[in-house]
Amino acid sequence: MNRKWMIKRLKNVTFKSPIMIEGLPGMGNVGKITVDFIIESLKATKIYELSSSGFPGCVFVNEKGIAELPKVEIYHKKVKGKDLLFVSGDMQPIDDFGCYELCDKLLDLFQISKGKEVITLGGMGLAELPKNPKIYCVGTDTQTMDKFLGLGVKNAKGVVGPIVGVSGLLVGLAKQRALHGVVLLIETLGVQNYLGIKEARELLKLLNKQLNLGLNIQELNKEIKIIEKEINEKLTTLVAHEEGKAKAKKEVTNYIG
Amino acid sequence: MNRKWMIKRLKNVTFKSPIMIEGLPGMGNVGKITVDFIIESLKATKIYELSSSGFPGCVFVNEKGIAELPKVEIYHKKVKGKDLLFVSGDMQPIDDFGCYELCDKLLDLFQISKGKEVITLGGMGLAELPKNPKIYCVGTDTQTMDKFLGLGVKNAKGVVGPIVGVSGLLVGLAKQRALHGVVLLIETLGVQNYLGIKEARELLKLLNKQLNLGLNIQELNKEIKIIEKEINEKLTTLVAHEEGKAKAKKEVTNYIG
Amino acid sequence: MNRKWMIKRLKNVTFKSPIMIEGLPGMGNVGKITVDFIIESLKATKIYELSSSGFPGCVFVNEKGIAELPKVEIYHKKVKGKDLLFVSGDMQPIDDFGCYELCDKLLDLFQISKGKEVITLGGMGLAELPKNPKIYCVGTDTQTMDKFLGLGVKNAKGVVGPIVGVSGLLVGLAKQRALHGVVLLIETLGVQNYLGIKEARELLKLLNKQLNLGLNIQELNKEIKIIEKEINEKLTTLVAHEEGKAKAKKEVTNYIG
Amino acid sequence: MNRKWMIKRLKNVTFKSPIMIEGLPGMGNVGKITVDFIIESLKATKIYELSSSGFPGCVFVNEKGIAELPKVEIYHKKVKGKDLLFVSGDMQPIDDFGCYELCDKLLDLFQISKGKEVITLGGMGLAELPKNPKIYCVGTDTQTMDKFLGLGVKNAKGVVGPIVGVSGLLVGLAKQRALHGVVLLIETLGVQNYLGIKEARELLKLLNKQLNLGLNIQELNKEIKIIEKEINEKLTTLVAHEEGKAKAKKEVTNYIG
Repeated sequence: MNRKWMIKRLKNVTFKSPIMIEGLPGMGNVGKITVDFIIESLKATKIYELSSSGFPGCVFVNEKGIAELPKVEIYHKKVKGKDLLFVSGDMQPIDDFGCYELCDKLLDLFQISKGKEVITLGGMGLAELPKNPKIYCVGTDTQTMDKFLGLGVKNAKGVVGPIVGVSGLLVGLAKQRALHGVVLLIETLGVQNYLGIKEARELLKLLNKQLNLGLNIQELNKEIKIIEKEINEKLTTLVAHEEGKAKAKKEVTNYIG
Repeated sequence: MNRKWMIKRLKNVTFKSPIMIEGLPGMGNVGKITVDFIIESLKATKIYELSSSGFPGCVFVNEKGIAELPKVEIYHKKVKGKDLLFVSGDMQPIDDFGCYELCDKLLDLFQISKGKEVITLGGMGLAELPKNPKIYCVGTDTQTMDKFLGLGVKNAKGVVGPIVGVSGLLVGLAKQRALHGVVLLIETLGVQNYLGIKEARELLKLLNKQLNLGLNIQELNKEIKIIEKEINEKLTTLVAHEEGKAKAKKEVTNYIG
Repeated sequence: MNRKWMIKRLKNVTFKSPIMIEGLPGMGNVGKITVDFIIESLKATKIYELSSSGFPGCVFVNEKGIAELPKVEIYHKKVKGKDLLFVSGDMQPIDDFGCYELCDKLLDLFQISKGKEVITLGGMGLAELPKNPKIYCVGTDTQTMDKFLGLGVKNAKGVVGPIVGVSGLLVGLAKQRALHGVVLLIETLGVQNYLGIKEARELLKLLNKQLNLGLNIQELNKEIKIIEKEINEKLTTLVAHEEGKAKAKKEVTNYIG
Repeated sequence: MNRKWMIKRLKNVTFKSPIMIEGLPGMGNVGKITVDFIIESLKATKIYELSSSGFPGCVFVNEKGIAELPKVEIYHKKVKGKDLLFVSGDMQPIDDFGCYELCDKLLDLFQISKGKEVITLGGMGLAELPKNPKIYCVGTDTQTMDKFLGLGVKNAKGVVGPIVGVSGLLVGLAKQRALHGVVLLIETLGVQNYLGIKEARELLKLLNKQLNLGLNIQELNKEIKIIEKEINEKLTTLVAHEEGKAKAKKEVTNYIG
C-alpha cells in the first residue's frame, strides 16, 4: 500500500533562500484564507501541484464544471528581492500518516529550493468568538520566534496544547531537519466550517509587516468573496457529506458512486 | 501492506479507441443498474475480472451456491463499429486509497487498450424523490462535456459538491493522464439501498442516444427484476450486516466467522 | 507498512493430499468450538504457529500466567490414512486486508503440503436461538458441495448473504487457486459472545460422518468446559474492552498501557 | 505506505546485560508516572529518541514554546553496576500495527545492547479506586515471574484478560525472541486521564526493592508536580480534542490546521 504521489512541476524557477508560508484548511480556516488572499493579491505563480492517493477519494467541480482532484499547490512570488513560497490546498490529508507524508514532500521540495525558514498558519478554536484575537507562536527555536514575539505575538508556552495537522507537523519536522520555522496560531471560533475572516486579517497585518509584503489589506473584503465561495463549495460539502445535511427537496447534497 | 491485485484476462481482444462506461454501486445504485442493463441487453462479453485485498473481506453466494470473491468486471461489446467497455462490480473499494488504486488499475487496462474516453455514472442524493430527475455533467474538459450538454444535460458547476467514490475519481485521474471523460450524475433519492430504476432509465435514454446503442428501453422493466434481485442480495445484506437488522426469528442475517 | 508475519514450524511432517478444516472465533463461535473439540479429542499435533502485526496489539494471559501473542495455529492428525489439518486461533484479523493476508498465508502453507480441499465452519446469526438448526453449504464447485448435500446439508443459494471473515474468504481464495472447498454454516443465535455448543455438536456429527473421525460426541459436554473457559477469557474480555463493561468495584476489566 | 522511523542516537554507551523498564501513557498513567519519576530521580541520561509517521500527526509545545514531535525516548543509568534502560514517551502509537512496530524497534535496540530482560508497567482499570491496589504479574516464563512473585506480586492467571498496548506486546514479542520479561500491572481507576500517583508509588516501592534503585520515594510528592503538569498538558489536551471539551470562552482548546 505505498501511496502514490503525483508532483507536477509547472515552472522551473531558481530561488535564493526562500521562505515557505503554509495555510491549509483547518480551525476557522484562517490559514487558508490568509494564504489564498496573499496569492491573489501578489499574483503569485503556481509552480507545483501535488496530488496523492493519501488525499480524499473524490473530485471537486470547478467554476467551469471541470473535475479537479484534491490537491496541494505551491505558489511563488519574489517580493523586494525575497523569494516567497506559498502552500495552499483543498484539504488536510485523510490521516496522521498522510500528514507526515505531505509534510515530508513539502520539506523535500523546499530543501531542494535551498529553503531555510517555514511559517505555518492556524487557528486555535475557542468556545466563543474572541473580540480581540491574540496570536500565539510556537517555533523550532527561540531566535526564529523572537522575530515574531517583537511584533505583539505571544509565546504559546503553557497556553497551547498539541497542534494537530499539517501546520504543527511541518514545523516539527522542519526542526528535525535543522530548518527554522514558526507556527502562528490565532484565536478563532472553534466551530466547523467557520470562516475566520476577521482573524485572517490580523494574520495578514502581521505577515505584511514581518515580510514586507506591501499588501492592501482593505481589499480583503472584496477578495474574500471569491475565496469564501470556493471554500464553501469545497469544504462545506465535504462536511455535509458526513453530517447527512439533506433537508430540503431541492437541496443537492452529495454523490457517492 | 502492499495490497494484492488479481487481474484475470478472460479474452484477448484488440480495440480501436474504445470508450469505457463505468457504473458501480453508489447513490441510488443508478450507475450499476444502468451498466448492468446495457451489459445484459447487448450480451457484452466479460474480458477482465479484478479482485483485490483492498476489497471487502467476504464472499458472495451465487445462484448455484458457489462462493464468489467481491470483484469488478470489464465487459466488451462492439456496437456499430465502436468498441465499448463496461465496468461493473459488486461494491466500491473499502477506503479512499482503494478507490485511487482501483481507478489506476482500470485506467492502466484502458490505456493498454488504446482507450481515450471515459463515461462514469452516478446519482446525486436528494432528500425527496425527484419527479423529473435532472442529469448533470462534470468533465475533464469543455469539449467532452459539450457532447452531453447538447443532449439536455446540465453543467454541474455551482450545483454539485465533491463527487466521492470511483465515478468522480476515475474522471479526475483520467484528466491527469490527458484522457477525456465525463461524470453523468442524475438526481435520485439519497437513501441507502434505494434502487433508482426510473432514474437509471433516464441515463439509459441518454446513453442510447449519445452512443447509438440501439437499446430497447421498454425491456428494462423485465431485465430489472434480475438486476434488482442480485443487487438486493449483495448490497442489502452487506448493509444489514452493519445495521444489525435481525428482527424476525427466521430471518437469516449475516455470518461472521 | 508491510505487515510482519512470523510463521513457526513446530514439526516437519509430510502429507498426502491433506484436508484443511478451519474454525476461528465468529458468529456463535461454532467454528472454534467444533475445531477445538476435534483437536482435543483426536490429540492432534500442533505443526504451525502464525502471529502477525496484522493481529490485535495485545497479549493473552495463559493458564500459567504467561503472556501469549494472539495467534493462529495449524494442527495435524492422520485419521484412517487421511491427513487432516485443523486451523484454530484466538481471533479474526483486525481488518479486511488482514483477512485476505491470513487466508493467503494459510493457503500457501496448505499448497506446499499438497492440500486440495478446504472445509471452513461458521455460524449464521438468527434473532432467536433455532430449535433444530439447519446447516447450509457454499462451495467452490458443485461436486465438492454434493458430498455434503447428500448428508442433509442444504444449498445456501438464495438464503445466505455475504459471508464475512476468514471462513468465507478462505473458500473464495481457494477457488481462485483452483482448490476445492466448502463453507459449512449452521444457524445460531446472532448475539455477541454467544457460545453455540448445541450447534457445534451438529457440525461435529456432520464432520464425524463425512470425515470418518470416530469421535465420541457425548464427550463434548465434558471437553466443552475447558474450551468455554478459554473462549470466555479471551473473547469476552476483548469485547468488554470495547463495551466498557466495568460495573462492580472488584471486577477486573481491561488494561491499556 | 512504509511508515518512517527516525531513530536518533544521542550517546554511544556500551552496556552489560541491561534491563529495560517501560512505562508509556496508559490506564491510570501509572507506567509513565513511575518511569518518569525514576528517570528524574536517578538523573538518567537520554540515549535514544524515536519518532515515527506511525505516531500522532501533531506537535507538542514545550516549556520554552518550542514545537516537539511526539516521541518515545530511552534513558540510561548504571545503578550499582547494573545497566538500566528506561523507555518513556508522549503517547501510545496510533494503531495496533504501530504498537507491533514500536515494540520491534525497541527490542531491536535492546538486543543490539545485549539486553536480556524487560520489565513493563501498566494499570488494570477498576470501576472504583482501589484502597490497597494489588500488583499482578504476567511473564515470558515462570522463572522470571518468580523474582516478583516473591515480593508480594500476584500471578495474573485467571484474573487479567488481554493486555492491550505496548506493555503487553513488548513482553509477548520479547518471549518470541527468547528474551525474558514481565508485565507488572497495578489496580487503578479505569477512568480516562486519571493519574494514579498512589498506585505509581506502589510500583516504585516494588522496583526500588527488586532493582535496588536507592530511590527516596518520599520525594515523589514533589517531583510528581512536574510530571503531572507535563502529562496534563500533553495527554489531557489530546483527549479534549476528541471530546470537544470547549466550554468557557477563554478556554484555549485545540488547534487543527
